[in-house]
Amino acid sequence: MRYELYYWPGLQGRGEFVRLALEEAGADYVDVARHGETGMKAMQSELTSTERVELPFAPPFLMAGKHLVWQTANILQFLGPRLKLVGGSGAKRIFTHGLQLTIADLVAEVHDTHHPLSTNLYYEEQKDAALIRAGDLIDSRLPKFLDYFERVLTNNPHGDVQLVGKGLSYVDLSMFQLIEGLHYAFPLGMSGFETLYPRLAALRTHIAQRPRIKAYLKSKRRIPFNLSGIFRHYPELDRPPKKNHR
Amino acid sequence: MRYELYYWPGLQGRGEFVRLALEEAGADYVDVARHGETGMKAMQSELTSTERVELPFAPPFLMAGKHLVWQTANILQFLGPRLKLVGGSGAKRIFTHGLQLTIADLVAEVHDTHHPLSTNLYYEEQKDAALIRAGDLIDSRLPKFLDYFERVLTNNPHGDVQLVGKGLSYVDLSMFQLIEGLHYAFPLGMSGFETLYPRLAALRTHIAQRPRIKAYLKSKRRIPFNLSGIFRHYPELDRPPKKNHR
Repeated sequence: MRYELYYWPGLQGRGEFVRLALEEAGADYVDVARHGETGMKAMQSELTSTERVELPFAPPFLMAGKHLVWQTANILQFLGPRLKLVGGSGAKRIFTHGLQLTIADLVAEVHDTHHPLSTNLYYEEQKDAALIRAGDLIDSRLPKFLDYFERVLTNNPHGDVQLVGKGLSYVDLSMFQLIEGLHYAFPLGMSGFETLYPRLAALRTHIAQRPRIKAYLKSKRRIPFNLSGIFRHYPELDRPPKKNHR
Repeated sequence: MRYELYYWPGLQGRGEFVRLALEEAGADYVDVARHGETGMKAMQSELTSTERVELPFAPPFLMAGKHLVWQTANILQFLGPRLKLVGGSGAKRIFTHGLQLTIADLVAEVHDTHHPLSTNLYYEEQKDAALIRAGDLIDSRLPKFLDYFERVLTNNPHGDVQLVGKGLSYVDLSMFQLIEGLHYAFPLGMSGFETLYPRLAALRTHIAQRPRIKAYLKSKRRIPFNLSGIFRHYPELDRPPKKNHR
């Protein structure tokens, strides 16, 4: 099975969560829109189809044989069993998906730190609002989410470097990406991370050392973080948390 | 099977999407946190558990026998086959879930029209930003999402008052709720809806007339829209779209 991933070229974005799963599994896939104009046209044509019943709303979407799947968490839920990146039981899959959707919520909030008012305005046109929203993320939202994820690791009776059950699942890869992105965007905002969230820090190290992920991160397939993605480093938006929430 | 729904009392919020599915199916359920202090305590205790492996991040969550499911779209995906509110094929279920997640994205954007900067500030403290964000929703985001949903109805070869396949599915109920909420919050912003989106308008009418939904909407179980929910009517944020995007 050759998977076709459709996502905007030039940025990691939400596509990166899918790429990490495909890379970890050593799956055969093509990143369609990164293959020149033809790829972009193919993507646009799917998004504007007047015939396709299972019409995708936005990239990323995945073609897998007869299936077209979109929404990042939906794609990962679809790939999970196929790439052996999720537990076998229904309860584990529901739990893994719940965690993935919670990561997706935080990712949307991170996006809104640089675009709190409108995606149709440049960041420079909404800088004052961005400053307030980014401060709120650092002081309030990140602690809320990261505390929660740390507690999930703590409560896992099978070990604390994976979020669900005994083995690696796709949500661990997404958690790695989230932590990497947050460190890129908010190096000051994330100060104290290793001390406050030792299990999340260990998960991050653990994933970075997996052979296929390590090779992928060094490869040209890994687009560097940049100012087009979801995680953006604007130094003026970054500062240490105002108070320790604990 | 008696389902236990846990959600904040006094507002529809995200819990309402789950309630509509349970009501349409005539399911046996209890809205736990609406049963006084005991219910609220039970909810808080689940959210702060140091033992529960499948720890929920936030309400709504659902207890169903041994399962604890959270994240609205995850709950609906879980309930779908159990309440016969989703098609039988894998492809249909993936598609239905993708649509539900897209509704969830829009719901989050609607929330941010009155809280664009921080959920820790009152609306009154972020009114100027809210005005810009609400305007962007009306002029740009709503057309983008509603156009898309209308196209999904148009492309469905089995009829255009349901989003997926031949029969009712949970996502139709959620679409109804979304349309109701948008009309409550932005009566001016939604002007032209029936003309621009005739199929979505027909879906709305169709769902409102289903006997169990009709009875539910008249009952005390249906909390009215109010200024605590996701959909809020602040007249100053509402205005007609600036230009027809078509």
